[in-house]
Amino acid sequence: MPSPSQRRPRVVIVGAGFGGLSAAKALAGAPVDVVLVDKRNYHLFQPLLYQVATAGLSPADIAAPIRGIVRRQANVSVVLGKVTGIDPAAREVLTDEARISYDFLVLATGARHAYFGRDEWEPFAPGLKKIDDATAIRRRILMAFERAELEVDAGRRRDLLTFVIVGGGPTGVELAGAIAELARKTLSADFRHIDPRAARVILIEAGPRVLAAFPPSLSEQARRSLERLGVEVRTGHPVDTCDAGGVSVSGERIGSRTILWAAGVAASPAAKWLMADKDRAGRIKVEPDLSVPGHPAVFAIGDTAMVADGNGKPVPGIAPAAKQQGTYVGRIIRNRVAGIETAPFRYRHYGNLATIGRKSAVADFGALRLSGFAAWLLWSVAHIYFLIGFRNRVVVSLNWLWAYLTFQRGARLITGQKG
Amino acid sequence: MPSPSQRRPRVVIVGAGFGGLSAAKALAGAPVDVVLVDKRNYHLFQPLLYQVATAGLSPADIAAPIRGIVRRQANVSVVLGKVTGIDPAAREVLTDEARISYDFLVLATGARHAYFGRDEWEPFAPGLKKIDDATAIRRRILMAFERAELEVDAGRRRDLLTFVIVGGGPTGVELAGAIAELARKTLSADFRHIDPRAARVILIEAGPRVLAAFPPSLSEQARRSLERLGVEVRTGHPVDTCDAGGVSVSGERIGSRTILWAAGVAASPAAKWLMADKDRAGRIKVEPDLSVPGHPAVFAIGDTAMVADGNGKPVPGIAPAAKQQGTYVGRIIRNRVAGIETAPFRYRHYGNLATIGRKSAVADFGALRLSGFAAWLLWSVAHIYFLIGFRNRVVVSLNWLWAYLTFQRGARLITGQKG
Repeated sequence: MPSPSQRRPRVVIVGAGFGGLSAAKALAGAPVDVVLVDKRNYHLFQPLLYQVATAGLSPADIAAPIRGIVRRQANVSVVLGKVTGIDPAAREVLTDEARISYDFLVLATGARHAYFGRDEWEPFAPGLKKIDDATAIRRRILMAFERAELEVDAGRRRDLLTFVIVGGGPTGVELAGAIAELARKTLSADFRHIDPRAARVILIEAGPRVLAAFPPSLSEQARRSLERLGVEVRTGHPVDTCDAGGVSVSGERIGSRTILWAAGVAASPAAKWLMADKDRAGRIKVEPDLSVPGHPAVFAIGDTAMVADGNGKPVPGIAPAAKQQGTYVGRIIRNRVAGIETAPFRYRHYGNLATIGRKSAVADFGALRLSGFAAWLLWSVAHIYFLIGFRNRVVVSLNWLWAYLTFQRGARLITGQKG
Repeated sequence: MPSPSQRRPRVVIVGAGFGGLSAAKALAGAPVDVVLVDKRNYHLFQPLLYQVATAGLSPADIAAPIRGIVRRQANVSVVLGKVTGIDPAAREVLTDEARISYDFLVLATGARHAYFGRDEWEPFAPGLKKIDDATAIRRRILMAFERAELEVDAGRRRDLLTFVIVGGGPTGVELAGAIAELARKTLSADFRHIDPRAARVILIEAGPRVLAAFPPSLSEQARRSLERLGVEVRTGHPVDTCDAGGVSVSGERIGSRTILWAAGVAASPAAKWLMADKDRAGRIKVEPDLSVPGHPAVFAIGDTAMVADGNGKPVPGIAPAAKQQGTYVGRIIRNRVAGIETAPFRYRHYGNLATIGRKSAVADFGALRLSGFAAWLLWSVAHIYFLIGFRNRVVVSLNWLWAYLTFQRGARLITGQKG
């Protein structure tokens, strides 16, 4: 039994996304015990989740078991459990099954999709944040074609073959492009009574342009690429209503049986657990060292945190930012244990990437702006490179090569239905 | 509009398993319209389903969309629908949504797992016939280790780490071997509070030996291979009771939180739809030409049919037998349309194969009997060869090579849970 003076500080990390895993890795070899808590047993490579939703990849291609990732890091133990709250006075994290005490706490709990106060729309317009969301959306998309094949009423058939994506950020653009390709290429010869190429794919963005985080010229490139794929891009008006039969946009009714939501995210309830000051998206307004105000041993990172970059703009909710924050928090905890001061967090922005179907993407690296095939190659290499796990890289590369050469998609399974 | 004399006979095939697909293929180019009805949108390579249940493969690796398989066969259309009955007087198949008229009907509806009148055991001991069964079993197995890691009570921990497989046929043997390997190799270094290698895997077979369809010498080889992997093999006694806490076998109570059922199958309700004479497993006793007695234009094949081979023994319920029957029925329908007689169905038995984890299998080809590594290589090549779809072959080969070299399993995802 170690005597109290020998007891190593315990670092509890909630969430094994990009931020949480980076924090755990940055603590490798440090004189601390790390407890990594997640409600799922896998790390999800979220940037490729839309590929699962559109039948290009299998869930296991973009997910790796957390225990496997940290297996060789002896000071990490993994707990599968759902965190329900924090007791900062007792320095304990509450899960559905236990209380876990901490000396340092890292909140990397991510974001969910948000309906801006219209939560009643969720059943009609599911969002895409989890593996189970992706397989449910895949089922909806594929079932719409199957139902259309059997439908004798022309109006109902048209609604079944109309796909509406709400939100013109990267996820909305990627979904719209992938569904258009699925209809025009993959499924084009598979039905006898309908022509899948006649499917309408409509992307609705309330703001003036798609991919608002990119420069206007790249937004325009993206819009043109989408239109070449057959996507109707509608900007400038929000969705007014949304129900089982379709959506209304600036007075126009669009009948659709498949509406997908890619319009917004909200942070996990971490801010509520600590009653911390938060922004409109629910992110904790953290100190320059990423600690939660009033809780110097508690840090928030990734989509859980709101922090300004060097220019006073908020750090974007993208994977590279979460990783940088995780690495920083690992370092600050190491330094604190060793009694060393640490300079404030400084975000380095490398660039933005978004893809629009096969062979087209946009890339913004400040001085360097790319679109079309060159950007798509860059996007592919970057995403495969950052996929965690050697095997996943190989499998995903192979799947993409196959899909690229044949237009086929390997994961066209309707699963999870009854019967 | 074709005049009545130009109308081509319609062949309805119910079920796109090995038998149904073979029948459809055998009708390629024939002057008939084929309607292939299945309640799922994919063909499932069932012999590898246990690999999905034990996290070795992803569902999409062993399933291919039916529409993709028959895309180039112009006389086939695919209907996604669940058949609920047959109206033989009207020559119509009834689905949940429509009535489909037929001139010839092929019933290739397969089998479900059966509990021999103890259906109340199903929630405690799920069986393995569908993709959703496999992902549910995968979740149960992986969750048992996760719960054990957090469990403080030694008795409950022991029950969580005890896995009982009921039934010593090929599926039971494959499951037991794969779970033992998962515990002893894949997961061995992944936990901090339990040692997964201490997990007990118990295979219970009511009969005197495992793999009863094989010669006794190969059954004995299989038992020894299982025991080398750490599986406890118990033969000669059936399970007396089965509940949420474990099983009882010949008076002994075995506490277990994960019980899997591989003890029996029953045919689909096709015999009931026609009120046809059936055997104890529910299979229709067909004529020598595989037609249903009294219904010369209705055929039953695969697990739906009971037919004797040349020696008076029933044709086994394995994929090669279903394929031969499908091909035969395709031919007999072609011949009938052309007014040609067809000799009775003759089953050719090539052999039996079963695998027992990495590097070990048994193969029985009459004069040639193999066990161990040579049999395993043969099994691997045969299964990859018969996998439908070029891509699946490549992906599965790659997954196996990776698993073989690293002992890792690529699909360790706990999906489908709440929250």
